[in-house]
Amino acid sequence: MENTYALIMAGGVGSRFWPRSRKALPKQYLPLLGKETLIQAVCHRLQVFLPTERIFIVSTKSQLPLLKEQLPWFKSSRLIVEPFGKNTAPCIGLAALHLHYLNPEAIMIVLPSDHLINNTEKFTELLDAAVRIVSQHPEALVTIGIEPTYPATGYGYIQRGEEFSTASNRAFRVRAFAEKPTQEVAEQFFSTGEFLWNSGIFVWRASTILQNIDALIPDLSAGLREIRQAMGTDQLAAVTEKVYKQIHSDSIDYGIMEHASNVIVLEGNFGWSDVGSWEEVYNICSKDEDGNVIIRDPVVRNVKNSYIESSGRTIAVIGVEDLIIVDTPDALLICRRDQSQDVKWVVEKLKHSGLQKLL
Amino acid sequence: MENTYALIMAGGVGSRFWPRSRKALPKQYLPLLGKETLIQAVCHRLQVFLPTERIFIVSTKSQLPLLKEQLPWFKSSRLIVEPFGKNTAPCIGLAALHLHYLNPEAIMIVLPSDHLINNTEKFTELLDAAVRIVSQHPEALVTIGIEPTYPATGYGYIQRGEEFSTASNRAFRVRAFAEKPTQEVAEQFFSTGEFLWNSGIFVWRASTILQNIDALIPDLSAGLREIRQAMGTDQLAAVTEKVYKQIHSDSIDYGIMEHASNVIVLEGNFGWSDVGSWEEVYNICSKDEDGNVIIRDPVVRNVKNSYIESSGRTIAVIGVEDLIIVDTPDALLICRRDQSQDVKWVVEKLKHSGLQKLL
Repeated sequence: MENTYALIMAGGVGSRFWPRSRKALPKQYLPLLGKETLIQAVCHRLQVFLPTERIFIVSTKSQLPLLKEQLPWFKSSRLIVEPFGKNTAPCIGLAALHLHYLNPEAIMIVLPSDHLINNTEKFTELLDAAVRIVSQHPEALVTIGIEPTYPATGYGYIQRGEEFSTASNRAFRVRAFAEKPTQEVAEQFFSTGEFLWNSGIFVWRASTILQNIDALIPDLSAGLREIRQAMGTDQLAAVTEKVYKQIHSDSIDYGIMEHASNVIVLEGNFGWSDVGSWEEVYNICSKDEDGNVIIRDPVVRNVKNSYIESSGRTIAVIGVEDLIIVDTPDALLICRRDQSQDVKWVVEKLKHSGLQKLL
Repeated sequence: MENTYALIMAGGVGSRFWPRSRKALPKQYLPLLGKETLIQAVCHRLQVFLPTERIFIVSTKSQLPLLKEQLPWFKSSRLIVEPFGKNTAPCIGLAALHLHYLNPEAIMIVLPSDHLINNTEKFTELLDAAVRIVSQHPEALVTIGIEPTYPATGYGYIQRGEEFSTASNRAFRVRAFAEKPTQEVAEQFFSTGEFLWNSGIFVWRASTILQNIDALIPDLSAGLREIRQAMGTDQLAAVTEKVYKQIHSDSIDYGIMEHASNVIVLEGNFGWSDVGSWEEVYNICSKDEDGNVIIRDPVVRNVKNSYIESSGRTIAVIGVEDLIIVDTPDALLICRRDQSQDVKWVVEKLKHSGLQKLL
């Protein structure tokens, strides 16, 4: 494992956890499920099997103050800074360039910072297996697929092809990637048993992903070459910013994974969730005997199957069921659990009402 | 009408409108149904048929700042001050004493300050009729009974006896008073057609109610005599306070009306409600096409038959029905409409949690 590095992608912004998450405080910086924030939890999870000096974070300039606040021990030399976000392909390309510069043999484990993983042991076992595949097959692009437990419409899917031999884990060649499906399509996917949830976790050699970018995303490739030439000089930040202004936004799935050969999916089951809505937070949390998740002591009477989070103000809730209630100092959400996807709509609405300060 | 005075009782405190009403801000000082507060509305309603100088308010010392704030035009010479509240019998007795001192022929219209009356014209017609009865029958104690529209459990009832002849209105001798009934009893009351809601509105001569107090509440009678002797001296406030410390709390219904002879009930129907719960506020307010009452612009989506009042903070409500949501700067209520009576329970609970500052 001595060439193995973890790369945590922490630049995302999200609107699904309004009013808790804001533009200025994205989901990965929230303690959605405990005392740790999601990004603190990712770091601690990785430290179980990687030395700290091989854990890197890639994020945008605007999030540096949050990162410093939440991970004060994290060395800035292991922080790869994007001038601003351009989706996952540039983000991963830039990070691959840095790691490859550091160690031409580098193997990268790429992880989102805002997901939940319950079973760290199974998770690390699977990453071990992925790293072994990449060690033996330098050209492989390994992605982690999650065995679906229900026909979700909130995730992308990966269709398995023929089996790819490994010692202990189930690895397959990838037949196809699919975007978030409709309910009907999700049910078809689920019933075939061939489709896995796309976790957004990847393992590959830095050199291999850079070769794939050269082959499949010419403008990013050219930009990365420019940045490569500035490395080790005081021009690096300025050149990176210039390049970022020119390149297109692109996701790694759309730009690379859907077109590359040698894509392997490793099937896993480690209590993964991308906690994409308040409903999922409710589902994951442990409940009291009335099925409630009650945070910071609201007064409740005759309340069932609800998620109620106060920010310290007095909240009294009487006679309700199946609600999400999230109170913050300047904004309040009250939402039926099964409509928590509509929180995005609120954020759009606020955007158009001139209430940007609340986003 | 030249001997007729209105007496507005404004000393009550209530917990049914938490978090809007507090110990420090009782219901009569809230604009529950419009721009005017309930007490401002009572004054304006009375000014339609009585000169301002014959409208009096009786309240407790602690509420004087609120009264001054909400009724800055109201002369303090027409403010009768109780040192603290001892229920309605002492309150009405003290006021009767003052009015009788001013004018021995005074006829008093006694009104709560925290009720809603929709049809001012019918209301004033009925008060006119009541004053005529008292003019012709000096010994009469007239109370206004409301034709019930449903078997309410939140009101006291008055059982009609034989008809009492008047020119144009339906007046009856009173057979019995009944406290707030159980649901079963309320349904019996309702089906007989003999029971009216007790509105707490009374019309009588000041001298007559004082005679009844002499006959039926000896300790109050003695106390009032003591206060009477201090009238016109600088000892009045001190003596009143001394007397209030000695007398018992007593309601006018229990202390006088249930025992007196010559009690007449005048039947009326003028859109009356004591607005005793958030549910009633919802029922009285005009609704939008989704059946919602929305105050101060919360963001709503897919919401039906709900009352939502923000205090200016951003509130987003998604996918709920039949809720009462009341947000204030330091406390929030979320309650099913049909359980809004339980708000009292919250107040009790807060009391026992050491959160008195929120009451």
